[in-house]
Amino acid sequence: MARRAIAAFSFSIIVLSILALQSSSSQTPRPFSSRGAPKFLGRFSTSKPHHSNDRRSKQLLGYRYETRYFQQRLDHFSFAELPTFNQRYLISSEHWSGPDRLGPIFLYCGNEGDIEWFAANSGFVWEIAPSFGAMVVFPEHRYYGESTPFGSREEAYKDAASLSYLTAEQALADFAVLITNLKQNLSAESCPVVLFGGSYGGMLAAWMRLKYPHIAIGALASSAPILQFEDIVPPETFYDIVSSDFKRESTSCFNTIKASWNALISEGQKENGLSKLTRMFRLCRELKNTEELANWLDSAYSFLAMVDYPYPSEFLMPLPGYPIREVCRKIDGCPDGTSILERVFEGVSVYYNYTGEVDCFELGDDPHGMDGWNWQACTEMVMPMSSSPDASMFPTYDFNFSAFQEECWTDFKVIPRPRWITTQFGGKDIMTTLKTFGSNIIFSNGFLDPWSGYSVIQNLSDSLVALNTQEGAHHIDLRAATAQDPDWLVEQRAIEIKLIKKWLSDYYQAKGAIVLSKVETGDRATSL
Amino acid sequence: MARRAIAAFSFSIIVLSILALQSSSSQTPRPFSSRGAPKFLGRFSTSKPHHSNDRRSKQLLGYRYETRYFQQRLDHFSFAELPTFNQRYLISSEHWSGPDRLGPIFLYCGNEGDIEWFAANSGFVWEIAPSFGAMVVFPEHRYYGESTPFGSREEAYKDAASLSYLTAEQALADFAVLITNLKQNLSAESCPVVLFGGSYGGMLAAWMRLKYPHIAIGALASSAPILQFEDIVPPETFYDIVSSDFKRESTSCFNTIKASWNALISEGQKENGLSKLTRMFRLCRELKNTEELANWLDSAYSFLAMVDYPYPSEFLMPLPGYPIREVCRKIDGCPDGTSILERVFEGVSVYYNYTGEVDCFELGDDPHGMDGWNWQACTEMVMPMSSSPDASMFPTYDFNFSAFQEECWTDFKVIPRPRWITTQFGGKDIMTTLKTFGSNIIFSNGFLDPWSGYSVIQNLSDSLVALNTQEGAHHIDLRAATAQDPDWLVEQRAIEIKLIKKWLSDYYQAKGAIVLSKVETGDRATSL
Repeated sequence: MARRAIAAFSFSIIVLSILALQSSSSQTPRPFSSRGAPKFLGRFSTSKPHHSNDRRSKQLLGYRYETRYFQQRLDHFSFAELPTFNQRYLISSEHWSGPDRLGPIFLYCGNEGDIEWFAANSGFVWEIAPSFGAMVVFPEHRYYGESTPFGSREEAYKDAASLSYLTAEQALADFAVLITNLKQNLSAESCPVVLFGGSYGGMLAAWMRLKYPHIAIGALASSAPILQFEDIVPPETFYDIVSSDFKRESTSCFNTIKASWNALISEGQKENGLSKLTRMFRLCRELKNTEELANWLDSAYSFLAMVDYPYPSEFLMPLPGYPIREVCRKIDGCPDGTSILERVFEGVSVYYNYTGEVDCFELGDDPHGMDGWNWQACTEMVMPMSSSPDASMFPTYDFNFSAFQEECWTDFKVIPRPRWITTQFGGKDIMTTLKTFGSNIIFSNGFLDPWSGYSVIQNLSDSLVALNTQEGAHHIDLRAATAQDPDWLVEQRAIEIKLIKKWLSDYYQAKGAIVLSKVETGDRATSL
Repeated sequence: MARRAIAAFSFSIIVLSILALQSSSSQTPRPFSSRGAPKFLGRFSTSKPHHSNDRRSKQLLGYRYETRYFQQRLDHFSFAELPTFNQRYLISSEHWSGPDRLGPIFLYCGNEGDIEWFAANSGFVWEIAPSFGAMVVFPEHRYYGESTPFGSREEAYKDAASLSYLTAEQALADFAVLITNLKQNLSAESCPVVLFGGSYGGMLAAWMRLKYPHIAIGALASSAPILQFEDIVPPETFYDIVSSDFKRESTSCFNTIKASWNALISEGQKENGLSKLTRMFRLCRELKNTEELANWLDSAYSFLAMVDYPYPSEFLMPLPGYPIREVCRKIDGCPDGTSILERVFEGVSVYYNYTGEVDCFELGDDPHGMDGWNWQACTEMVMPMSSSPDASMFPTYDFNFSAFQEECWTDFKVIPRPRWITTQFGGKDIMTTLKTFGSNIIFSNGFLDPWSGYSVIQNLSDSLVALNTQEGAHHIDLRAATAQDPDWLVEQRAIEIKLIKKWLSDYYQAKGAIVLSKVETGDRATSL
């Protein structure tokens, strides 16, 4: 039986195409979706990804842990009578030096998917834990993986009422309650917690350090686009960076892709055009419109930019090192006379079919489905995305909040709150705000990663630091070390380890000083 | 018609007596209420206090402001479909230097009562605003005063379901949303906000600075017992300090009061004892048991300690300067042969009837009523209080969480979450936690104030500072200046003003630097 490739899924944050394909007869943009916010198709919340099922188990075999469950309130911020749910978490105490030695606890802030998948792809945390004598905990984000309220995924995702507690604040409170309880049960109240997270998980890690400094002494927030709200950073940034990643490999490649969208529409409008496209792109099912094909292409380019790692990887798909280089080599390397669309097909085949095992391609499910990230994007995680006319190789599109809001209403019967995240977590004028506030956060970013444009890439203070790499892609630093790691990556991780060590030694020093001062003075003031 | 004094009410945080009167035949404590948490009887959420109605208007006449209303979500942390409510706020732009000059905004974090009452008793904020060119905003706390959800106080306080959104986190979010919206409407996004608050309002101010540093640049948290949770500070602290306030005036006064509880029980157990007590204490209605009388006495002593101001005041009741001195003078000064209970009555008459206008005393309403603070104390604000056998002049009592929980269930059908506040806001090991985290909070305390024992009275860092006065009582620094202000109070306020000026100048400097760096570099990094 033929293997099928599934399109556009399995990433920590996934872009829903906001392509605005212009019809040849009109200049009015026709976006596939007016939602500019990055979208996650939530696939690993329902089932394990097709392609990596076996590898996942194999990868995880290296990291020994127990799977446990913790009963959580559905709403931490009210006293409404609501059912509780079981939050899954993975835990390993194998290398923990224990409470007496104030052994640290490494907590990965689970993001929008199955926690085992994030655990498998965050080798850095597992690999450095032994030398720190650290416990490792990977709690799952509510509403994803096995951590669904109301007894089943179906019930949890039924409607706006059942989904209404799927928010970042509730997820952070889950982590806070879980770790507090865990530490108490282990008499480990004084053990310092260090946070880790990538992508949305990195946003959670940074926010958690800011909101719960009494629970975690520091956070490594890798590729965390905490500034992609309202108008803090221009919404074109994402597609501009994706496009620049292609352009740096080849201007003709960039130009071919930029020209392909109109070619696609033209082809689709011809008699039997859709059938021809179905055959040209080796689709498993007859194409209904060009939009879904454009989405599929957009996803490939966007993901390629995110995983433009310097060595072969299998995070989303099995891919060669610097896969964009390979895509452009294919696009540029076609014989003269090859059409734009045929070139583009050759290019994306690197992404969707690098192993050459795919017989036909599925374009993926309805992106408007009731998936977790779609809900989050339609409520508080309103992260605008546009596509600029010049720097971008994607069709021009301006984020339109009204249209976005309408779509959210259609899909979920919910009204987005685009200003809530900045009210709750800040972001605007972050340089002034955090200059003398907060400490111990590393914002790590690779400039090939399109999300880097929305993250913190300047030091905010002495200990709120930006750690940038020119050649890095989406949270590459969190991945397991490989023999092919370039020097800059080895160095980046070494700095991260050094900073984490500093946080810990500062903590131990402060603890020691307090204990000493208690012994010395013994007055009520020291009960602080 | 005779004027009646109403017992035990009208304070920002009020203690529900936790007296454990021991019967003469048994050593088992019989607490009036096993709730050790401080209680607020919520009187000013329903009606204006009897005694100060006229004065309130007069006091407020001096401060000109507009009253406005802002539509708030009932639950900021979920997307459940719930009715909105109107939050009342008082606002004065009279002295504001405006958005162009980045005029500051002084925001008082409204606590558990009618906001007009807090505005009237926070003269410091009004008085210093003009010299800062500051706008003044006093938003009301949800569920109090006029800011009740569900259309009426009756509906809002109906049951646990309707009350479930009365929490500190929701109140902070109200403030955050309101001020963000207000600033946007005034194009004043860059204007710095400085927080003020006393008692529970001081807790909110401190927490708000920690949780919303992007919204407020600093906070003056006056008499804010943020450490009265779990076992951070011994629960006996409150009554120990009240008792010490009496002892420092007169040991015999302290001893008389300490002996009075058993005398009260003995008298009540005699034939016609309750009738005799009714007459002796000039009660308007026949006494049903000695417990309610003991509560009435406990309240008087506790409030006296809170308002043991060095000059005559009328915050709760019209009182002379250093009222405890006056109470003890009465207790000690009775002719030989005066019984303990008669002495005690003479003493508390200073509190309940200083003007001599009261014909008979009402012991007050049912403390188990559906009042806002009672709800908060039964849900998240679980602030244990005990009474020690030696240092306290009150009957010995050990806080009993099980009994407390049962009472809460009886009253509200709600289960308290005693560990939630420390999970959400911290408090444990605050010295280590905040040593390198956060900035710009003044914790001001007077050591006569029994709440000072649960506040921060040591500097946590360079800019998280404790400002203590030996002779100060409950948030005296927030009160309007008077001609009789002692030097230490004048000095305390001067330091506060100096610190606030420093926060502002640091902010303006940082803003200036950012603007400059944007102009100089002009790269995408500066879009931070």
